[in-house]
Amino acid sequence: MNRTNLIEQINRKKSYLCVGLDSDINKIPEELQRFPDPVFEFNKRVIEATSDHCVAYKINTAFYESRGLAGWACLEKTVAAIPDTHFKIADAKRGDIGNTSRQYAKTFFGHMNFDAVTVSPYMGEDSVSPFLDFENKWVIILALTSNKGSDDFQQLSIQDKNERLFERVLKTCSRWGSEENIMFVVGATHPDAFLDIRKIIPRHFLLVPGVGAQGGDLGQLTKNAANDDTGILVNVSRGILFPQNNLDYPQNIREAAHAYHHQMSLLIQ
Amino acid sequence: MNRTNLIEQINRKKSYLCVGLDSDINKIPEELQRFPDPVFEFNKRVIEATSDHCVAYKINTAFYESRGLAGWACLEKTVAAIPDTHFKIADAKRGDIGNTSRQYAKTFFGHMNFDAVTVSPYMGEDSVSPFLDFENKWVIILALTSNKGSDDFQQLSIQDKNERLFERVLKTCSRWGSEENIMFVVGATHPDAFLDIRKIIPRHFLLVPGVGAQGGDLGQLTKNAANDDTGILVNVSRGILFPQNNLDYPQNIREAAHAYHHQMSLLIQ
Repeated sequence: MNRTNLIEQINRKKSYLCVGLDSDINKIPEELQRFPDPVFEFNKRVIEATSDHCVAYKINTAFYESRGLAGWACLEKTVAAIPDTHFKIADAKRGDIGNTSRQYAKTFFGHMNFDAVTVSPYMGEDSVSPFLDFENKWVIILALTSNKGSDDFQQLSIQDKNERLFERVLKTCSRWGSEENIMFVVGATHPDAFLDIRKIIPRHFLLVPGVGAQGGDLGQLTKNAANDDTGILVNVSRGILFPQNNLDYPQNIREAAHAYHHQMSLLIQ
Repeated sequence: MNRTNLIEQINRKKSYLCVGLDSDINKIPEELQRFPDPVFEFNKRVIEATSDHCVAYKINTAFYESRGLAGWACLEKTVAAIPDTHFKIADAKRGDIGNTSRQYAKTFFGHMNFDAVTVSPYMGEDSVSPFLDFENKWVIILALTSNKGSDDFQQLSIQDKNERLFERVLKTCSRWGSEENIMFVVGATHPDAFLDIRKIIPRHFLLVPGVGAQGGDLGQLTKNAANDDTGILVNVSRGILFPQNNLDYPQNIREAAHAYHHQMSLLIQ
């Protein structure tokens, strides 16, 4: 999916919600355990309950790899079950020397039909560029992540004391491609950082985790991070898959996605 | 495998060779293509031809994932086929928020029987610590990688201009565990850096890629990086799997591994 199509989907739905399919097999409803692939059955029902409310799905590969072959089969079936109207993100956090990154790009863009893969910037340009050789495919580069560990290195001041490592990552990596094929991960847990980030990359899309279970505030991050094209995809995983409302499954999932959608439609109207 | 056992293996064989099973299906011998899983047949023969000469195997997951389910099945069979006398490294370069890194740790240490996983430090402590909860298992943290892209961020000076990012990574990450469960990746393509690195972490094992196809010099890196416990595992992938000598397969592989072994035995005698 290219940038124009993505923006059209966002404008049409007035939603910039990304549903994270971190479908932990130990947490899904009991009634699905009778199926040969309970996680896939859960994912199908989540997609059905949420597709009107979101524009993207993010699949964290860790939750699938941890179940070995069965998990990998489930990952392949799940991405194939997502409608083409939705942007499909492999949250894989890969990145290796060029020769090897090319193999990862083949995995997610060739063997499977993802639109984007998350990549760590630590190994530099030749670890990212093989992903950019695929037309209408994207890399989403970790800049400032949502976790506590983001303090350890990402926020270190470099050379000129006014620049932090994640800011250098934004400046350098944005030159490797364009806003047509590069996005950045910025966690909702750093709301003030969005103002600095938008000075560096006003037009790029940001993938924003950290709303919900991790405590980020949707209103504040939207105010600080949204641009004229909306320019953000806000991911919610546990807050939609395993919501804290009083409805029965799967109505609870539909309602949780609807609540985020409704809030977003008011924030970008 | 714990540190004592690893050092015993090195001393017994006078080898610190790690064979990288980057078994590209497009490059393996024609005669194996008739098998249902040609890459696994190739790997079995490589292990048989090299196990006397090496102390470790490193499997780069990218080469397996790119073939989907069949590749993942091959990965599981390959790690199970490596003798317990050898240290088994999943070169997966993973790392995510704590909740997710725990899933990756389960994949490689629970579902499969790897001794170590390579991890990117960019996301900080909580992305690494879940791997350290497993007894006698290791993380191998990217510090200064072998590729050209290592210039982009790893070598940036931070705060105090005498410290580069990778040096801060060594200092900070070494506090998260001990030399019993943490190693670092340092590429052979930066031979002078080993002297600085050994001032920061004199005792930790280093996993050293970049010899062979990438041009690093074994003698020079051993001189600069080896410590009293040897303390290095030097990985060779393409240089052993697809060697440039004149022998027929699989003698060419055995001879390539033997040549590295012989050179190593002289360097650490």
